Amino acid sequence: MEKIEDLGIGGYRVIQSKEGFCFGSDAVLLSKFAKVKRGGRGLDLCTGTGIIPVLTYALYGPESIDAVEIIPRVADMAARTMELNGLSDIIRVKNADLKDAPEIYGSRVFDFVTCNPPYMNSGGGIVNPKDELALSRHEIACTLDDVVRVAAKCLKQTGKLFMVHRADRLCDVITTMRKHRIEPKRLAVVYPNSAGAASLILVEGLMNGRPQLRLEKPVFMYDDAGNYLQNISDNEELGMRN
Amino acid sequence: MEKIEDLGIGGYRVIQSKEGFCFGSDAVLLSKFAKVKRGGRGLDLCTGTGIIPVLTYALYGPESIDAVEIIPRVADMAARTMELNGLSDIIRVKNADLKDAPEIYGSRVFDFVTCNPPYMNSGGGIVNPKDELALSRHEIACTLDDVVRVAAKCLKQTGKLFMVHRADRLCDVITTMRKHRIEPKRLAVVYPNSAGAASLILVEGLMNGRPQLRLEKPVFMYDDAGNYLQNISDNEELGMRN
Repeated sequence: MEKIEDLGIGGYRVIQSKEGFCFGSDAVLLSKFAKVKRGGRGLDLCTGTGIIPVLTYALYGPESIDAVEIIPRVADMAARTMELNGLSDIIRVKNADLKDAPEIYGSRVFDFVTCNPPYMNSGGGIVNPKDELALSRHEIACTLDDVVRVAAKCLKQTGKLFMVHRADRLCDVITTMRKHRIEPKRLAVVYPNSAGAASLILVEGLMNGRPQLRLEKPVFMYDDAGNYLQNISDNEELGMRN
Repeated sequence: MEKIEDLGIGGYRVIQSKEGFCFGSDAVLLSKFAKVKRGGRGLDLCTGTGIIPVLTYALYGPESIDAVEIIPRVADMAARTMELNGLSDIIRVKNADLKDAPEIYGSRVFDFVTCNPPYMNSGGGIVNPKDELALSRHEIACTLDDVVRVAAKCLKQTGKLFMVHRADRLCDVITTMRKHRIEPKRLAVVYPNSAGAASLILVEGLMNGRPQLRLEKPVFMYDDAGNYLQNISDNEELGMRN
């Protein structure tokens, strides 16, 4: 069963599976955080329903985004989302293993890479690898190291990687990025509210960058009265495209 | 010129130099963050005026703390602070280079190490090494790597390192701790207020720990009305000793 959801920006919509992934706040947070170059060329890894490239395009207007998804059924859904929005020429969905991305697209070609990767260290195979939800949540088809290594290969020498991940993986994210010569330059910590432990991190890494991190102001999901703060249309930082 | 300042807890006081270091909020923040074992044995590196061991003792009551300071005049001031407070048997100040600590105290002997190290990567010698203030601020006499390496040697197999550092050095702190097999387990980000970029980080690392970070609720220096929030006596987390 599929459903079509309005993204609340530019009239764009996304096709989602009622049983499988639904896009969540992670995608919205990453898109708002990832201030990509207007006119740049992007790559979205683990694209799922294609929500991140659509939001990134709506917010910043890059020239094009290639989007890679390993599950055939989900990649097909994402491709149909692009058709539905008239974006097929700009956001090109490919059903492929992200580890093949450097071969498919070439090295040093992208201005930016975005990724909302599987968060959970699978830790040794308790999860059914045919389970689509499990693939999107656990590091079965790709590890954090795979994602960052592929990004490092595909990015131009001064390209940027934007990633959202679970707060408890912060040290893994930082050490893995440095291992592949992507220096974390901006980090935002996402808290449920001003009194809660962090849930997510948003990181911008610069290919071959010098060490010097900007740890940005805190991102809160809710204010103290319990109002949700992270709608895509609430973007204080940017003039939006529409 | 020296002055004596009341620490606002347990009647303890600290001798400070009017021209040199004054203890700042960093020491207070680290002491509140560093929940050390009651009855444990601690080591404070770069102790300066000895403020961190005094606060740590006042808050948690460890058995003893050895405190190391490289500048003779400052170490002497710290030793007199301990006399002033009747703490000389508990907090033992030594004028030494922290790099000699494993030799002085032995390996694998401390339950915890605290450190408020010089924050600035000296980057190549523009600073006068005879300047006491410069020594406390720049990595001249010791680098981040020195501090963490020495902590790793001196800590017991399940000992903890508590460190405060500048937010822009977060990646260096994490990668250096992992390099020396100290796994960051708790991290708190310190923000001036809810709308500002982070200034400091507080990290707890566990010797030989498994990767899994708790990124704690944000620490704010001021509330939205501009009230200072980080007095040592405002310690919501703990029953204090007095």
